[in-house]
Amino acid sequence: MASNSFGEILRIATFGESHGAALGVVVDGVPAGLTLSEADLLPELARRRPAQSDISSPRKESDRPEIVAGVFEGRTTGMPVAVLVRNEDARPQDYEALRERVRPGHADETYAAKYAVRDHRGGGRSSGRETVARVVGGVIARKILPPTTRIVGHALSIGPHRARTFDAATIEQNPLRCADPEQARAMLAFVQQLRDAGDSCGGVVEVRVADPPPQVGEPVFGKLKARLADAFLSIGAVTGFEYGAGFGAAAMKGSEYVADRSNFGGILGGISTGEPIVVRAAIKPSSSTGDVAKRGRHDPCIVPRVVPVLEAMTALVLADLLLLHRALR
Amino acid sequence: MASNSFGEILRIATFGESHGAALGVVVDGVPAGLTLSEADLLPELARRRPAQSDISSPRKESDRPEIVAGVFEGRTTGMPVAVLVRNEDARPQDYEALRERVRPGHADETYAAKYAVRDHRGGGRSSGRETVARVVGGVIARKILPPTTRIVGHALSIGPHRARTFDAATIEQNPLRCADPEQARAMLAFVQQLRDAGDSCGGVVEVRVADPPPQVGEPVFGKLKARLADAFLSIGAVTGFEYGAGFGAAAMKGSEYVADRSNFGGILGGISTGEPIVVRAAIKPSSSTGDVAKRGRHDPCIVPRVVPVLEAMTALVLADLLLLHRALR
Amino acid sequence: MASNSFGEILRIATFGESHGAALGVVVDGVPAGLTLSEADLLPELARRRPAQSDISSPRKESDRPEIVAGVFEGRTTGMPVAVLVRNEDARPQDYEALRERVRPGHADETYAAKYAVRDHRGGGRSSGRETVARVVGGVIARKILPPTTRIVGHALSIGPHRARTFDAATIEQNPLRCADPEQARAMLAFVQQLRDAGDSCGGVVEVRVADPPPQVGEPVFGKLKARLADAFLSIGAVTGFEYGAGFGAAAMKGSEYVADRSNFGGILGGISTGEPIVVRAAIKPSSSTGDVAKRGRHDPCIVPRVVPVLEAMTALVLADLLLLHRALR
Amino acid sequence: MASNSFGEILRIATFGESHGAALGVVVDGVPAGLTLSEADLLPELARRRPAQSDISSPRKESDRPEIVAGVFEGRTTGMPVAVLVRNEDARPQDYEALRERVRPGHADETYAAKYAVRDHRGGGRSSGRETVARVVGGVIARKILPPTTRIVGHALSIGPHRARTFDAATIEQNPLRCADPEQARAMLAFVQQLRDAGDSCGGVVEVRVADPPPQVGEPVFGKLKARLADAFLSIGAVTGFEYGAGFGAAAMKGSEYVADRSNFGGILGGISTGEPIVVRAAIKPSSSTGDVAKRGRHDPCIVPRVVPVLEAMTALVLADLLLLHRALR
Repeated sequence: MASNSFGEILRIATFGESHGAALGVVVDGVPAGLTLSEADLLPELARRRPAQSDISSPRKESDRPEIVAGVFEGRTTGMPVAVLVRNEDARPQDYEALRERVRPGHADETYAAKYAVRDHRGGGRSSGRETVARVVGGVIARKILPPTTRIVGHALSIGPHRARTFDAATIEQNPLRCADPEQARAMLAFVQQLRDAGDSCGGVVEVRVADPPPQVGEPVFGKLKARLADAFLSIGAVTGFEYGAGFGAAAMKGSEYVADRSNFGGILGGISTGEPIVVRAAIKPSSSTGDVAKRGRHDPCIVPRVVPVLEAMTALVLADLLLLHRALR
Repeated sequence: MASNSFGEILRIATFGESHGAALGVVVDGVPAGLTLSEADLLPELARRRPAQSDISSPRKESDRPEIVAGVFEGRTTGMPVAVLVRNEDARPQDYEALRERVRPGHADETYAAKYAVRDHRGGGRSSGRETVARVVGGVIARKILPPTTRIVGHALSIGPHRARTFDAATIEQNPLRCADPEQARAMLAFVQQLRDAGDSCGGVVEVRVADPPPQVGEPVFGKLKARLADAFLSIGAVTGFEYGAGFGAAAMKGSEYVADRSNFGGILGGISTGEPIVVRAAIKPSSSTGDVAKRGRHDPCIVPRVVPVLEAMTALVLADLLLLHRALR
Repeated sequence: MASNSFGEILRIATFGESHGAALGVVVDGVPAGLTLSEADLLPELARRRPAQSDISSPRKESDRPEIVAGVFEGRTTGMPVAVLVRNEDARPQDYEALRERVRPGHADETYAAKYAVRDHRGGGRSSGRETVARVVGGVIARKILPPTTRIVGHALSIGPHRARTFDAATIEQNPLRCADPEQARAMLAFVQQLRDAGDSCGGVVEVRVADPPPQVGEPVFGKLKARLADAFLSIGAVTGFEYGAGFGAAAMKGSEYVADRSNFGGILGGISTGEPIVVRAAIKPSSSTGDVAKRGRHDPCIVPRVVPVLEAMTALVLADLLLLHRALR
Repeated sequence: MASNSFGEILRIATFGESHGAALGVVVDGVPAGLTLSEADLLPELARRRPAQSDISSPRKESDRPEIVAGVFEGRTTGMPVAVLVRNEDARPQDYEALRERVRPGHADETYAAKYAVRDHRGGGRSSGRETVARVVGGVIARKILPPTTRIVGHALSIGPHRARTFDAATIEQNPLRCADPEQARAMLAFVQQLRDAGDSCGGVVEVRVADPPPQVGEPVFGKLKARLADAFLSIGAVTGFEYGAGFGAAAMKGSEYVADRSNFGGILGGISTGEPIVVRAAIKPSSSTGDVAKRGRHDPCIVPRVVPVLEAMTALVLADLLLLHRALR
């Protein structure tokens, strides 16, 4: 079953709760001979981490990964790679008030109904902290993809503000990961205002894949677009997915749609064409608002933090389908 | 691998090409004792079938299903249910011109690149005709769901026209399956115009689930929203997915988002709350336009035909996750 | 779930009951470009079929396969291959007496307890007739294996009689598929005697794989030996599995065991070495004895009929693991 | 893929190498509300551990498990349970000589051929130490089974010595886990002799399940006997599997076979009858003999240590199939 695993040949099994002992991931289906060290994992973990600016949660986590299996003398062995990230700044006592209370609009509600026992501390397993495991998986997946393939995500919109230009060099230079430096400033002001008001906002993240492997994806149920949709919607904050023209295609005439290949988003018949892949995810605003948000350790806008997670999921999907394509061609 | 199968406990394996001998499906994980006959399958197959109005493809298929396994004296036996639908109006010769030619914007392109051999006839396996198998699976899935659960899809928009009201009784009374009778007329005029011009259009389909089973969905990778996204994007014409507030949530403040529970779309933390589930799919316009569309057997607007397919996929996802929930509770 | 499917990348989903409309199989994960026709399937189906001698069930089935999907102009297309074999000599009325009666020592007992509804006719899905589907899958699997790989099964023992020599040319020249012509005669006399007495017997089938692909099998849970054991025990009549020295190894000293590489059966650490693979299955005697056996259509000894089924399962396991090995190397 | 995972609904993913940082397991599909603590794991880990007598490897491992996820205030939460067991007595330097040398008859051979990189230390992932993870999984699986179900394994034979009686109380009172106290003495003398000679021996382990849940197992590919065979053969030292009459059935007449229900081993048609389940595994002698065995840390007879591992695998198979049965009944 797929409850806590993702992928078929390249497969991650994730575990851990926000305020438990550790987060972790077991990555199976990793080809032997890839170089891999804890140092490889640090940059992406750092990109995912909060507390990088005054608009993020003040949770202090150094997120030091430990590779406990599957790597020998700096190389993968073909055996499952297991990585553990200990929780350091867990403050379970901060959440004692939530023991008997479920927050409206949170997973708390359905977890409490579905399970006899609930780890109420910081959302437990439903916390965004679970995505640490995915980021680790993504680093490994990228090593399976061709070295020329580049996966770049950015905040296409934050609340009502939408990027008008795309300057990749800008993305990591503003706290919102916006590729339009001008809009980035407007976005930041908007988010700071919300933070002060104890409110939050969402946005749209776009992931672009340049030079993707072609012929990747299965014709019917393993379509590349479907696997990406599954991957993206498996993230708590994501409320929508589209590729290429996406929802915009619904309002186009067929003649318009076929006239511009960028509408296809690099995917035809569920299979990559080799052209750039473009996918987008809608990110809802955090449900924690008001006093809870002010007191708690919540980001007013998690959009920039979702960017590396969506990149990781994109890498995992592409690498898994690439391995299957290798098997059958 | 998931190339031609979908689901975990309740699992469909589909097969068949548009102009081959037959389409079919094997449904595994069907509880014993459900009543099932070919007559049960006919209404949904009829709803999926083209040639129901002057805006649909003139392909004549009676779509007579044969249950070849898994049913004994009118009841399922717990063994896999296999259903075959012979192709009757296959006209492979109509497609001879496509043998050496790949249609731009079609799966033809990527199939030709990925596989050594291609069934060029009417799109082969990439044809929408494959969805016959899913509709059959959906009928069985509904029998696993509580009898009070109702799954209703409708065309929320067609090209630029969007329904403003929701009158369920109207849906099957207009060829576009629009729940707003007034907009239905405008939509029909729009589609007829496109048909005459050899053009096509898409739209947005919304599926509503009333009285869904609560507590269905897995917390991390089997989230109900993710499984639905996977299911919907596995359909060729679908270019986007959203649930609840969807892409609209990206522009909301957190305080707005939590203020209206309908924004959650009946899903919290990936698990159904028991409230109505609301999901939407963007449908692209058919890529076959111009002379090809006029001569071939193509619908100017496939949106209404996608409705029963999305309903079927919704039923399959819900029933599969319900079975898993039963196993673990 | 694996209830009616077997394999991961190369995956068969089987369906059908002994006296239903048809038996069938959907084979997913078939590389494109393999030659395949109904004629390819006939020889193996004929080998599996009863009524080939006076010691077999008189059921008359021509077992004419129809490829309904996945093959175009004589070649596989990469899409699932679906094959249907209609039941012709079904005589459901012969089994009317079994409607209310479960035969002791048969699947009837547990099926009746587990399922609300039971197809009592000839064992329904528990009949050996289900193996038709596996034989079809095996033919396809062999086409994925290197052409030099040869999979040959034979009756190593029948009741108390055990082959002392191995002459491959003899196997198909005696009704028991024994590779020792002298013992074949003793075996035949033994089986005829049992048939006349309304009794039955089992035996041991050995499958040898010459020139198997090396490096096939996964280190921990996809071990070649484990997948073969799973495959063999999925056949109703099989009560034991061993490879190489098998149960004999349990009585050896380590120094003896390592002194003769044939004890390893071509598998070390769960992975094929490239040396001949040798596996064996214990086949129990048919549980239908006495008057039931005399009147019904039961073989006094199904061992020779199990031979092509075990060969097919061996091919399916090897091909599936070979595809995975290709993906990851 | 199943390379390092086992089970469908209840699913273990194992990781770790003999002389790496840690062994571990992630157990998914664990119902919420089960009591679970590290103390629950200790007895079974202790039973699996070597160095319990003078016939076992002198490796000193305290095998202290750490539950890092999935348990909250002493109960499972429905989230994956992750358990880590650090390696303490790893002495990689002892194995430096094996860096360039593959031991004949060991997984070393095929690992070296299959993978570019090999962890040569103590067999790496192919070491029996990997079974620590399975024992942990087995403890959790037992908590899912009915409390009246008892799974008891014992050494039915060691080399040429075979138990003649079955006294369950005796099993844990002799170092070979033999249920016949008299034979236990003969076995011990035999093993001590082999140890002094630098040789090793195997044996047969029998696992009996009293009061198993009935109706467990799937009719075709998830047969209880097949899943058990897969589970047992996934252990490095196992070279054969049988249930009920097993290989003995191959020499019986049908009339004999059906006359004694114990021949069925508690399984009919692949489904448990509710009667005691009896399965056996052939264990080969360790391949490390001669000087290597004397100097290294190898057991002359690993049979008693395999007993708790086979019990654990039996529990995992039964619990997984029970969950599936719950889903579908």
